Amino acid sequence: MSSSDAPLDLSLDGGALTARLVDFPSVSGDEQALADAVESALRALPHLAVDRYGNNVVARTNLGRPERVLLAGHLDTVPIADNVPSYVDGDLLYGCGTSDMKSGVAVQLRLAATLTEPNHDLTFVFYDCEEIEASRNGLGHLAKHRPDWLAADFAILMEPSGAMVEGGCQGTMRAQIALTGTRAHAARSWLGDNAIHHAAELLGRLASYEPRRVEIDGLEYREGLNAVKIEGGVAGNVIPDECVVTVNFRFAPDRSEAEAEDHLREVFAGYRVLVTDSAPGALPGLAQPAAQAFLAATGGRARAKFGWTDVARFSALGVPAVNYGPGDPNLAHKREEHCSLSAIAEVEDRLRAWLTGS
Amino acid sequence: MSSSDAPLDLSLDGGALTARLVDFPSVSGDEQALADAVESALRALPHLAVDRYGNNVVARTNLGRPERVLLAGHLDTVPIADNVPSYVDGDLLYGCGTSDMKSGVAVQLRLAATLTEPNHDLTFVFYDCEEIEASRNGLGHLAKHRPDWLAADFAILMEPSGAMVEGGCQGTMRAQIALTGTRAHAARSWLGDNAIHHAAELLGRLASYEPRRVEIDGLEYREGLNAVKIEGGVAGNVIPDECVVTVNFRFAPDRSEAEAEDHLREVFAGYRVLVTDSAPGALPGLAQPAAQAFLAATGGRARAKFGWTDVARFSALGVPAVNYGPGDPNLAHKREEHCSLSAIAEVEDRLRAWLTGS
Repeated sequence: MSSSDAPLDLSLDGGALTARLVDFPSVSGDEQALADAVESALRALPHLAVDRYGNNVVARTNLGRPERVLLAGHLDTVPIADNVPSYVDGDLLYGCGTSDMKSGVAVQLRLAATLTEPNHDLTFVFYDCEEIEASRNGLGHLAKHRPDWLAADFAILMEPSGAMVEGGCQGTMRAQIALTGTRAHAARSWLGDNAIHHAAELLGRLASYEPRRVEIDGLEYREGLNAVKIEGGVAGNVIPDECVVTVNFRFAPDRSEAEAEDHLREVFAGYRVLVTDSAPGALPGLAQPAAQAFLAATGGRARAKFGWTDVARFSALGVPAVNYGPGDPNLAHKREEHCSLSAIAEVEDRLRAWLTGS
Repeated sequence: MSSSDAPLDLSLDGGALTARLVDFPSVSGDEQALADAVESALRALPHLAVDRYGNNVVARTNLGRPERVLLAGHLDTVPIADNVPSYVDGDLLYGCGTSDMKSGVAVQLRLAATLTEPNHDLTFVFYDCEEIEASRNGLGHLAKHRPDWLAADFAILMEPSGAMVEGGCQGTMRAQIALTGTRAHAARSWLGDNAIHHAAELLGRLASYEPRRVEIDGLEYREGLNAVKIEGGVAGNVIPDECVVTVNFRFAPDRSEAEAEDHLREVFAGYRVLVTDSAPGALPGLAQPAAQAFLAATGGRARAKFGWTDVARFSALGVPAVNYGPGDPNLAHKREEHCSLSAIAEVEDRLRAWLTGS
């Protein structure tokens, strides 16, 4: 029996269960076998109601508690890079997905199996295709087609956060600014108007831009506005008539997308700004009572999340959400990816204490 | 008998001979049949000594005159664009190569056939592959392998110049300036250093650069320094660590290539400047007695040549050279290319007057 045919044994400790999940490959698009195993293990638990949509599995308690807490994690990993099977070295478990985020999934499964009488109703969400294009994201599909399965008062996304609470996430917006000129032969440059030279003023605005820092729910968000691409030129002997600068604005979650766009148009007043794509941020929601109790239980330490994450999908559904998981975000997607076994145990213990305390 | 089998009849007038040459296709790389016809027509003239190297044909008088004048023209054209055969509309002859430069070649052939007792010894050079990569240029091959065939006191390149003398040519130099920074995720831009933003200062120098104008032998040369390409960016969510700007410097012929490079290093002090290619300019040489007489004979009007042309190859051999031809430089390489029949006659008459006068 190969490892991927064996049923998942949820009585293993968190570290051993993580190793078991890492040895069960599930690169994005290839999650079906793991989703089957997760579904089957959860259906064996009488205190949970289990639903499935595609390769997304959702398990819930229905105890009539006044509040519902949701714990979410993605089943997929980036492509394996000679880093499966897993192995242990001291306190560290090495392998593809150890940090991002099979250690988080292991904690979810451990809590799902053992919290038969939690103090909040619980929803466990396991989804697919987080590491690839947003249109295939399983949580996005649930939000669109089964939004009631995601109803909750507070959500915890168990992405790698170094066992720290990371609140909210910043929004992101990309825009193109096209500078124009007049083409001419380079030998008679005075007949032309060089579009690349016009970029000097625009890039000067970017170089001297002072990004805002703002505190929300006690967390400091640092914005950023950067050119991420510039392209101009026709041929080595031609004065170019176009130069296109692409900028990326990372904005704190107190701005809406519309406000972020207004800000870009203000910074680039006088230029034609074409927004090509954007995603809203998510407020940390740490002022909520459930979040406060959670924060206290996890040690009271929280920091702002800068990168865009799926917490924004919960935010869009009106569910405050944070990132909190045992993995190390700096190791995600790396060949030497690993996770601390004691961090896995710590996160499980803290969540258990919070979800069983009075 | 197809037109390309018929021998060239050098008793036709310049316009009719131009039409005959246009109807004898000779796109770059395909000049052999025309070179054969030119060689054969010239060998029939007893006052000329004829040599051939590849598809380059050179004919000379050897009358022991104190000075030698060289008239050069290329046999090839850019690809035909539905503009062969030629046709006449009023004073205009339409067709591929009418301006660039079969009208000039026709004048060369008319003078070669009829100037049996010129006041200077004459050299007529017909060469191939001018319209393509420099390494295949027939005049370059002659300069390298048969430099003695190009010996002369003054050279006239019969490229289209609107029947005006165009003196010398400007040099050209391309250089790359690479701006560097530090890569980082765009969500944590303060950890990076944006190489594209560094281009602001560099492009500012280009935008405010005041190109020099200089008068040489009575002709005004206008230099130019321009970005012709800019490229930077890694991905839409990454602070870029490199941005490369390519500049093209067109310099007046009183600067050598080394001086032009020094100037670039001065303008871009503080940056690493990598010169990728260059070609020297050519001084107009209009102070020479032969040139003065030529200028007077052609009406005394001369202007600076800005684009780089093969006159620089003569200059490199120590032969002062100018462009002077009946074609219209603004029509070269265009589908609607045409040439004025009266300009062809005028250029032939003026050259004949100069080369037979006392």
